Amino acid sequence: MRALGAELGVQQSALYHHVTSKQELLGLVADAILERAPRRPARADASWQTRVRRRCEDVRAAVLAYPDGADLVLSVWAFGLGGGAPEDELRALLLDAGLEEPAASTASRTLLHFVYGHAYAQQAHDHAARLGAVVVHSPDDFGAGLALVVAGIASR
Amino acid sequence: MRALGAELGVQQSALYHHVTSKQELLGLVADAILERAPRRPARADASWQTRVRRRCEDVRAAVLAYPDGADLVLSVWAFGLGGGAPEDELRALLLDAGLEEPAASTASRTLLHFVYGHAYAQQAHDHAARLGAVVVHSPDDFGAGLALVVAGIASR
Repeated sequence: MRALGAELGVQQSALYHHVTSKQELLGLVADAILERAPRRPARADASWQTRVRRRCEDVRAAVLAYPDGADLVLSVWAFGLGGGAPEDELRALLLDAGLEEPAASTASRTLLHFVYGHAYAQQAHDHAARLGAVVVHSPDDFGAGLALVVAGIASR
Repeated sequence: MRALGAELGVQQSALYHHVTSKQELLGLVADAILERAPRRPARADASWQTRVRRRCEDVRAAVLAYPDGADLVLSVWAFGLGGGAPEDELRALLLDAGLEEPAASTASRTLLHFVYGHAYAQQAHDHAARLGAVVVHSPDDFGAGLALVVAGIASR
């Protein structure tokens, strides 16, 4: 908060006129990152599988666009202090597709744990690669992994 | 490395007689955490689904046993500098069950991205809860989510 105040040219205490805590600010940052996710319109006849996959791909693109984006959004979502929109949207898609509760909540959270886990690993890998520390190639298997999770949901 | 040297009562430089870098040390720590995972023997007639689920539950227990365990193991695994045993073991289980490559590799990595993503969120949540910052209850849906991913693999 001190560094942010310096960057903005205001006292640190002035920031607390806008947010009550650093955690609240991080929640707002996570929401802003997610709001900038691409939103590719689905065709009217798109299956729920296509809609769910697309939403997950867009959420992934949003967090990958910022350094430590997956870390921030996953943490804030776990705290319950922000970043809740993707869970709500995926759950609505799955309820609309006929899944019931609590299966729809579990499925939406499982999709996001996979999406953020994969994105976190990719950002850690890319960060290390920039520092010259990485020795292995990271396979590009996000789409194939997402398809597996969606197939698991479809089996219910 | 400086703090570790001080803790051990040796010069920081002495550590480099044992490891070439901090990254290598972190890889060894991740391997040690994973080696301490419980290993519940499966019944001889256990299905591959049961074996896979059990291995994932044990890996989860291993990383949850240490602060930031999921963060460390997921990062090191992404670097390719350690923590590779669970991927190898799950892939072997899946190949044994009749899955072929590259499906077995994708499936083992997808399981682990879910396991670590879920564990990371839980550790972030628990850490914040200890600091009194958390406002939401975190549902205990690891088993249900894992079952979804395994069902997706079974559908292949």
